[in-house]
Amino acid sequence: MDNKSYLVQMNGNGVHSKTPLNAKTLSGTGVNGKGVNGNGIHHVSVNGSLYPAKAKSRRQRWEVKPSELAKNTLNPIRAIVDGMKLTPNPNKPMIALSIGDPTVFGNLPTDDAVLQAMKDAIDSQKYNGYAPSVGYLKSRQTVANFYSCPEAPLEAEDVILTSGCSQAIDLAISVLCNPGDNILVPCPGFSLYKTLAVPMGIKVKLYNLLPEKSWEIDLQHVESLIDERTSCLIITNPSNPCGSVFSKEHLQKILKVASRHCVPILADEIYSDMVFPGCSSPSMASLSKNVPILSCGGLAKRWLVPGWRMGWILIHDRNDIFGSEIRQGLVKLSQRILGACTIVQGALEGILNNTNQSFYKSTISFLKSNSEICFNELSTIPGLRPIMPSGAMYLMVGIDMDHFPDFKNDVDFTEHLVTEQSVFCLPASAFEYPNYFRIVVTVPEEMMMEACVRIREFCQFHYQPCSHDGNDLDQ
Amino acid sequence: MDNKSYLVQMNGNGVHSKTPLNAKTLSGTGVNGKGVNGNGIHHVSVNGSLYPAKAKSRRQRWEVKPSELAKNTLNPIRAIVDGMKLTPNPNKPMIALSIGDPTVFGNLPTDDAVLQAMKDAIDSQKYNGYAPSVGYLKSRQTVANFYSCPEAPLEAEDVILTSGCSQAIDLAISVLCNPGDNILVPCPGFSLYKTLAVPMGIKVKLYNLLPEKSWEIDLQHVESLIDERTSCLIITNPSNPCGSVFSKEHLQKILKVASRHCVPILADEIYSDMVFPGCSSPSMASLSKNVPILSCGGLAKRWLVPGWRMGWILIHDRNDIFGSEIRQGLVKLSQRILGACTIVQGALEGILNNTNQSFYKSTISFLKSNSEICFNELSTIPGLRPIMPSGAMYLMVGIDMDHFPDFKNDVDFTEHLVTEQSVFCLPASAFEYPNYFRIVVTVPEEMMMEACVRIREFCQFHYQPCSHDGNDLDQ
Repeated sequence: MDNKSYLVQMNGNGVHSKTPLNAKTLSGTGVNGKGVNGNGIHHVSVNGSLYPAKAKSRRQRWEVKPSELAKNTLNPIRAIVDGMKLTPNPNKPMIALSIGDPTVFGNLPTDDAVLQAMKDAIDSQKYNGYAPSVGYLKSRQTVANFYSCPEAPLEAEDVILTSGCSQAIDLAISVLCNPGDNILVPCPGFSLYKTLAVPMGIKVKLYNLLPEKSWEIDLQHVESLIDERTSCLIITNPSNPCGSVFSKEHLQKILKVASRHCVPILADEIYSDMVFPGCSSPSMASLSKNVPILSCGGLAKRWLVPGWRMGWILIHDRNDIFGSEIRQGLVKLSQRILGACTIVQGALEGILNNTNQSFYKSTISFLKSNSEICFNELSTIPGLRPIMPSGAMYLMVGIDMDHFPDFKNDVDFTEHLVTEQSVFCLPASAFEYPNYFRIVVTVPEEMMMEACVRIREFCQFHYQPCSHDGNDLDQ
Repeated sequence: MDNKSYLVQMNGNGVHSKTPLNAKTLSGTGVNGKGVNGNGIHHVSVNGSLYPAKAKSRRQRWEVKPSELAKNTLNPIRAIVDGMKLTPNPNKPMIALSIGDPTVFGNLPTDDAVLQAMKDAIDSQKYNGYAPSVGYLKSRQTVANFYSCPEAPLEAEDVILTSGCSQAIDLAISVLCNPGDNILVPCPGFSLYKTLAVPMGIKVKLYNLLPEKSWEIDLQHVESLIDERTSCLIITNPSNPCGSVFSKEHLQKILKVASRHCVPILADEIYSDMVFPGCSSPSMASLSKNVPILSCGGLAKRWLVPGWRMGWILIHDRNDIFGSEIRQGLVKLSQRILGACTIVQGALEGILNNTNQSFYKSTISFLKSNSEICFNELSTIPGLRPIMPSGAMYLMVGIDMDHFPDFKNDVDFTEHLVTEQSVFCLPASAFEYPNYFRIVVTVPEEMMMEACVRIREFCQFHYQPCSHDGNDLDQ
């Protein structure tokens, strides 16, 4: 719709200008002072009133229903978890391996420099007022400097600060897609993309990740899904829920596909730099010669403060394909609700520049060692197929359902894992990927080990050596 | 659209369940493991690939355009201010009476208790993780307790915390309105309502405020605008840009109209309690017997920290007209990008409960005395019609354009006020209300006085005793 479509009524009190305003000064609306409303209908004085005595047909009784937007906003994780009967075994304390929040167990505090930067920002009293809707210039410059590299240089103007990475992704999808367009989303993948896109009438096409290839993208599948209404390709790297990290070579192949079909990339890089030693993860942008990229990130994961809602979009557009239009579009969208808390914006410089390298290192080595404990334990459990991650904070485990005839599917499996062993893992159906479950590796080490022991006990109890298709020969 | 409409492709790697999942566990999507995609088209193996060798028609060259949503997101204030030539008089320091941010001049710091509460929240390390999308229960309870009153009791479940009052208004409009619906918005009024509604296909109908009645609502006009697609009536009280405060009697009349036509109210009460001594302002909800109300507020104005982005929706629905559906709709919408910074959420209890009454009092008495200075000065300037406010932080001034033939309109008038006197007031065209300008009364007293002197000089220089319609008799 265009902004002609809102009605503008005359002011009954007649204080308006005798000289109509030129349209420009009214930002394209049809206001005027001539007793004519937006529909061009002259008001007539009816029984002393400027307005018709009888109003148009209207509600006779209360009937307030939620909008389609609200009804269509679905959170698949909630939809599945809320549908599960999660009654832990009273004899065993609950261990939740389901929560993608590294702070819940207190074993992964953020760096002191991060807390100090926040307190300094508060004491300065300089960050209580409104920031520009895209963030303070100084804070945007700080982020630009932090992520700029020779292959993908960044200026302050290439950075838009947002209320968490969620809003970054929301703005990126909102600026690139119209209703009826489609976006390509990884499967298994983070459910937010769908939660954001579907209510806006944007179609979601799932492309496959290949577990047998450490969750690399099935690029043939991607190409088969691209059509003229494909408005962006979403790449999550490192991956939630897989914990996989793409090689430079694979990223280059992805860029080739995007380039061949002229599809811009939304790179969800919230886990960037959360990569295990011995495995590098260049940013998409650093490898892109021409494909325009909106890279979404934030403080949440690497700095372990997801609640602070500090996210950003990095605009990479060296061939000027987005041009000023997409940039202006992002600025306009940012004006709807403004962005991140100004205290966190004010603290950004201290957070990004003063955090000790040792902090990043120790977080990553903890995640790696916990992943190894979990992977090594589950690898030896018949019926399970854990896949070793290379980064982020997740590990996916395949379930050979044929060997667990007691259970219908991954949801049923994980539900009973709670009932019998008080261990909760998120069924991968929440990521549209049945018969896997996701383990969050941020829990304290001893908790991880105890969880593995219980999962083993659970699997040993329910495992059937042969499939339940009636072939009993191997028994 | 419904969520049937997104395509779900099979997983080429064939790891899916042999037993199709029941729909429930997949939250209504059509995933299955049978090599059939959402369109029911079987994949066929073409030259060794599961996917068609030739893909559907697709882009041959780059063409990335911003979405309609982005293009239609307009900020009238920016549209007007950006179009003005604002070149101050080099011999006079600039005085900006245009910025609705009480913190810019440093003369209105927040209370120490507010800063302390923030630092305590940081030190506690308890508020770094994700909060529920509607906010911590404890923080919601704090807000509920703060605003609960016998006539309009509130529980934690009636409170939704948001990223600033802007997101509160965004969620409230989004849950109540579908494309094609219309909302009733005050004129003059805050431009955000239109900025949010129009891109979503929601029509905005402007209803008149009456300057000669201290900006009370022209209720006849409101009634004439209501039709079956009117999904909410927005009431801003106290008012930006008018600084007006409605009496109990007027609020009751407004509620009668809403009740008669069964239209829910969105009460923008971000300036609630910012009311000058001697004038009371009950909340809409405290007077409502049956009309359901979403009251939007936040920390921004009363606690003088607009940048912190802490807002809330108070759900008042004593007759269960919103019912659980609207509540669930708000929860769903809150899950799109989550809400407010957890540090500010954690600080809420200290902020609301420990801030000294003297802080509120001194802020308000400052605003009142500055308003009086401004009103008294401008009242004696021929050609200007200031209207004394009763609250908030604004004062509207009418311009008798006939006496200022040098200028086309309020935009032209305020533009020259900058060029000649280095005083910038926002032309009320930014609020769809030509031939007025808005003054922000939060500037330091001496600045306010100096500004008034310059405005007088400007008006005296340009004032023409008679209208410029050629009648010269009174000269």
